[in-house]
Amino acid sequence: MFSRVAIVGLGLIGGSIGLALRRSKAAQEVAGYDLGKGVCQQARRVGAIDAAYESLEDTVRGADLVILATPVGAIRALLQTLGPVLTPGTVITDVASTKAQVISWAEEFLPETVAFVGGHPMAGKEVTGVEAADADLFCNRVYCLTPTVRTRSGAINKVVALAEVLGARIRFLEPAEHDGQVATVSHLPFLASVALMETAGESASWRDASLLAASGFRDATRLAAGSPEMYRDICLTNRDAVSRGLDEYIATLQELRRLIVDHDTSIVEHFSVAQQMRLKWQATYEE
Amino acid sequence: MFSRVAIVGLGLIGGSIGLALRRSKAAQEVAGYDLGKGVCQQARRVGAIDAAYESLEDTVRGADLVILATPVGAIRALLQTLGPVLTPGTVITDVASTKAQVISWAEEFLPETVAFVGGHPMAGKEVTGVEAADADLFCNRVYCLTPTVRTRSGAINKVVALAEVLGARIRFLEPAEHDGQVATVSHLPFLASVALMETAGESASWRDASLLAASGFRDATRLAAGSPEMYRDICLTNRDAVSRGLDEYIATLQELRRLIVDHDTSIVEHFSVAQQMRLKWQATYEE
Repeated sequence: MFSRVAIVGLGLIGGSIGLALRRSKAAQEVAGYDLGKGVCQQARRVGAIDAAYESLEDTVRGADLVILATPVGAIRALLQTLGPVLTPGTVITDVASTKAQVISWAEEFLPETVAFVGGHPMAGKEVTGVEAADADLFCNRVYCLTPTVRTRSGAINKVVALAEVLGARIRFLEPAEHDGQVATVSHLPFLASVALMETAGESASWRDASLLAASGFRDATRLAAGSPEMYRDICLTNRDAVSRGLDEYIATLQELRRLIVDHDTSIVEHFSVAQQMRLKWQATYEE
Repeated sequence: MFSRVAIVGLGLIGGSIGLALRRSKAAQEVAGYDLGKGVCQQARRVGAIDAAYESLEDTVRGADLVILATPVGAIRALLQTLGPVLTPGTVITDVASTKAQVISWAEEFLPETVAFVGGHPMAGKEVTGVEAADADLFCNRVYCLTPTVRTRSGAINKVVALAEVLGARIRFLEPAEHDGQVATVSHLPFLASVALMETAGESASWRDASLLAASGFRDATRLAAGSPEMYRDICLTNRDAVSRGLDEYIATLQELRRLIVDHDTSIVEHFSVAQQMRLKWQATYEE
């Protein structure tokens, strides 16, 4: 199916893709590259790659598929470096959480001879690193693909084949459409959680109040424990959709505040609507 | 320890208190009252009460301790009804989530001959109703008590004895102090969760976006599934503290929005601060 797949970035995601590719024998060689100390050795040990390379150029040379499995913050520089060295005909994809910005970088830095197909596998774990890699991580999970009108179908098919090897459910989306949707269901919840933790933690009575915080507080602030650097890059590469989401969120909170100050019992309608939406969503969500 | 304890409201909380009292043989009689069809019979069946009564007056007659274990929305009317019928010397407490408003009702409706001690056991489950009652529900949980300067110490000791029977950890707080702290760690997280669910659910792309929502969204919106009526009463009886909390939350969100729009990488400092606060709190929290 693939002759040579190069995975750049051997964390949880890159490592899990490698494990799944090797288990299914879908590639003649899975090559890996990572800047982290000892990460390549660990990736070899867990069986996520066949071989590790010391240079990016050696890793991607002759690959028919290159997968950028780094955080979005590293992708611009990677594309800039890879542009001149990729073998003509290579298909390149990524796994970053935002797509429009990544695609504009790909259009800026990659030559006409290679094809870029944006991807975003919707899977994760609370743990990170290649030692947590799992060949089934993407099984039955949504895998967003965001080809543009200029993307050749042969290139799309390569990345579709990858998603199928992973057992994922493919969804095609426009890049901006993808970014708007993940802003709503992922980036906005993170910001809501951060602001909640900050508001509570900086309140004058936090030392005492923290002793009263229980499971509701735990759930509502869980996302705030996420990687600051990763979320910085996500928010800054998805500025328009995230700021639009924040505007709507703030307007909703202001409306709730107004009802409370006015002692307006019709606030129960907001709570009922949200409860019904939540129950309906929960019923369709597979853990 | 107690001759007669009357529990008004036999849900999860009232039922669990009854079970614990009966298990420890701390009361000669545990009397119960509930307006719900069949609830008293069910409470007797699970062993939460010794006897059920058809009238509120019969339930509380001669009780040395009356526990109002209803949602806060029912308490004003209950205190109004109970005022003229309570036996002199009775101590009365509640389990409601807000305290200043409840205490002002108690001062308005109860005669000088009975003593009110506000209480708030910080425990709960995702399930409700007396069939989910659990004698260990309050074990090692915080039990807030909010006596005022006018509360007699004999009355406080009665409610302290109750909290000790439950195995709870007692914390004394001023009523307004309690309300400020629970606004921060409980009511504000609920409103943040409701607004998040409403913002997402009312976005134009929700049908598609909902398919991308995963565990982060699940956690951040879990509280929105809570009882609309219960939270309406909580928010409206804790108006000042909740609206102050919302103001601070909205201001924090506006600051995050500004940093994103300005493409200001220093937003990572907010994320780091929130992450450290969250990890620190999590380390002290016992599940």
